[in-house]
Amino acid sequence: MKNLFVLTLLLMIFGSLCRAQHQTVIEDFKPSSVNQPGKEYPQVNSEGRVRVQISAPEAHKVLLDISAVKYDLVKDEKGVWTGESAPQDEGFHYYQLWVDGAAVPDPGSLYFYGASRWGSGIEIPAKDQDFYALKNVPHGQVIELPYFSKTNNSMRRCFIYTPPGYDKDTKKRYPVLYLQHGGGENETCWSAQGKAGLIMDNLIAEGKAKPFIIVMDNGTWSMARRPAGERPAEWPPKGWADGFAKTLLEDIIPMIDANYRTLADPKNRAMAGLSMGGMQTRAITLAHPEVFSHVGMFSGGSISPEDVEKAPDFKKNVKLLFISYGSRELENPRRGNSGDPKENTAKLKEAGMNTHFYVSPQTAHEWQSWRRSLCQFAPLLFKK
Amino acid sequence: MKNLFVLTLLLMIFGSLCRAQHQTVIEDFKPSSVNQPGKEYPQVNSEGRVRVQISAPEAHKVLLDISAVKYDLVKDEKGVWTGESAPQDEGFHYYQLWVDGAAVPDPGSLYFYGASRWGSGIEIPAKDQDFYALKNVPHGQVIELPYFSKTNNSMRRCFIYTPPGYDKDTKKRYPVLYLQHGGGENETCWSAQGKAGLIMDNLIAEGKAKPFIIVMDNGTWSMARRPAGERPAEWPPKGWADGFAKTLLEDIIPMIDANYRTLADPKNRAMAGLSMGGMQTRAITLAHPEVFSHVGMFSGGSISPEDVEKAPDFKKNVKLLFISYGSRELENPRRGNSGDPKENTAKLKEAGMNTHFYVSPQTAHEWQSWRRSLCQFAPLLFKK
Repeated sequence: MKNLFVLTLLLMIFGSLCRAQHQTVIEDFKPSSVNQPGKEYPQVNSEGRVRVQISAPEAHKVLLDISAVKYDLVKDEKGVWTGESAPQDEGFHYYQLWVDGAAVPDPGSLYFYGASRWGSGIEIPAKDQDFYALKNVPHGQVIELPYFSKTNNSMRRCFIYTPPGYDKDTKKRYPVLYLQHGGGENETCWSAQGKAGLIMDNLIAEGKAKPFIIVMDNGTWSMARRPAGERPAEWPPKGWADGFAKTLLEDIIPMIDANYRTLADPKNRAMAGLSMGGMQTRAITLAHPEVFSHVGMFSGGSISPEDVEKAPDFKKNVKLLFISYGSRELENPRRGNSGDPKENTAKLKEAGMNTHFYVSPQTAHEWQSWRRSLCQFAPLLFKK
Repeated sequence: MKNLFVLTLLLMIFGSLCRAQHQTVIEDFKPSSVNQPGKEYPQVNSEGRVRVQISAPEAHKVLLDISAVKYDLVKDEKGVWTGESAPQDEGFHYYQLWVDGAAVPDPGSLYFYGASRWGSGIEIPAKDQDFYALKNVPHGQVIELPYFSKTNNSMRRCFIYTPPGYDKDTKKRYPVLYLQHGGGENETCWSAQGKAGLIMDNLIAEGKAKPFIIVMDNGTWSMARRPAGERPAEWPPKGWADGFAKTLLEDIIPMIDANYRTLADPKNRAMAGLSMGGMQTRAITLAHPEVFSHVGMFSGGSISPEDVEKAPDFKKNVKLLFISYGSRELENPRRGNSGDPKENTAKLKEAGMNTHFYVSPQTAHEWQSWRRSLCQFAPLLFKK
């Protein structure tokens, strides 16, 4: 009798917990802004939950897999599975579905390259989304260009943003930002999920940034996977960025300067990147401060006073050093070889360098941090 | 006893049939050229069979769905499913997988827009694939441009191919081809699966075509789905192409002429399209022969002597009329309102028009027919 009472009590508690959990889901879901044309799902609600739906009548288990957590979907009588995630941070996230053990893209979403695959992406509407909204303002172009790389002896592809009016006034020349993606990403990312073109169009329309060209190439590093087993004493290994440095300095920059109306001098040349692209920016600009004058690293480490001491031309040549992170990254800092990024930036400022440190509020190692970083970085570029 | 004999005989025949069928699969499969980076599957063999593979340990039925036929995959002890299709025609095909009743893209392939969705595509190497191969020749750019459309009161997007050297000699002006996709496709298709840019780069490098600009916009017709039930007396209905005609004539052409270095006169303006885009080309050029002088319809009907009689300026203004089909389409012709395309083209030639009729060998209503059509059509454009 006592056991029955305990069991009843437990069932009641469990039931109310389930209801409580269910009640917390606010039923104001809307299709994501990056759905395929005409697709009703995936959807997002005002809490930032992601709800997906897929017809899989013969399946036994379907999961939504987002931000490293898997959520069970529930099947209805027609064989349609539906379910939602916990609230997600604002901005863009990669995700996938699991259908009876098969990891597949959601047929409802547009596809983006990340995590070394083309797969589903979703937008959680952000309070500050206006800065990358598609508006009726003058727009630049995003150019896809195949080119031959001598250093790789192969064809490559880059994307080039040219600002509004580039093709109208064919006398004007522009500064150039070389802007790199992260690990497991490629040359499409900054324009697609990064919305680099829209960010620049909006900044330029508001008079907040000087018009410049952005070159987005593929910096995939062939040894980007850490060897299995113990962590090597030095990671990434010495010279890891040399391959892309050679391609950038010997192929990409000369090709861009020869074919586009650039201001082809170091004063008008910047490099920036996110995560792995930030680490490449660090390695390449410290080794070649005679080539770049403006440097940005988004969630990709920092440059210390010691680094600068070892590369004396860096301090002399670099007019701007911009370091940024998502706030959630700083809650659990994984400090690189160069120490605390905020401290480094402050010390270099004291030492007379024009440094900026930016933290994206309530975002992690994600695209919303990097969109915001570009939006903060671009107005500081090529000021004179 | 007799029954047992018959059963044994049947089993023997069945067994040898299975072996025979199995033996016909030539084991020289290679990864498709449009796989995602680093992905081993899907693969294609020298017969044109498509072999797919996907890990789905808990699934009970996995199918490959290509060219309107579904093929069963077989599961191994690790839960990996593998299987192949019958031989496919040369060129590009859309396909998908079914995992326990869920229709999903293959995680191994790149994704293309067609059949009103972003989904998997595969390339069956063609004997003539050299004409769209990526080579070390001067390359044009493919530009993605957002723009505001007054007639739709909304932002739209188009893709623009500019020929090699467009940004070097900023004095030179170029003719323009407006090139439209088919039903269930969009403005990305001609450049991605159509390989329009590579076809032009190769033709120009060989001196076979005059350099010109190509504009690829979205001609999706909001009523493109035939109403359920009986076929209406007139399909597509009267005025179906008016919406896109208005957008093309009032937004797209003026925007292109204002922002790119075009030769902005009818003599230097062409329109072509495939399937639905061919039907739009027919409707728009017959109604507006004062705007275009070169007309191409690929697998999209034809223009009859009666059509031309009703639009007298068409004969006077149009310097080239090019009609094409895949050979397999002509085996089972679905004749449109305008009669037999070959007869029409021959009669108009007799009547003094510069007409061309092209048949793509051993291809159907597929991209290989349209790539070949563009390759035949482009050298005929803007000859004087």
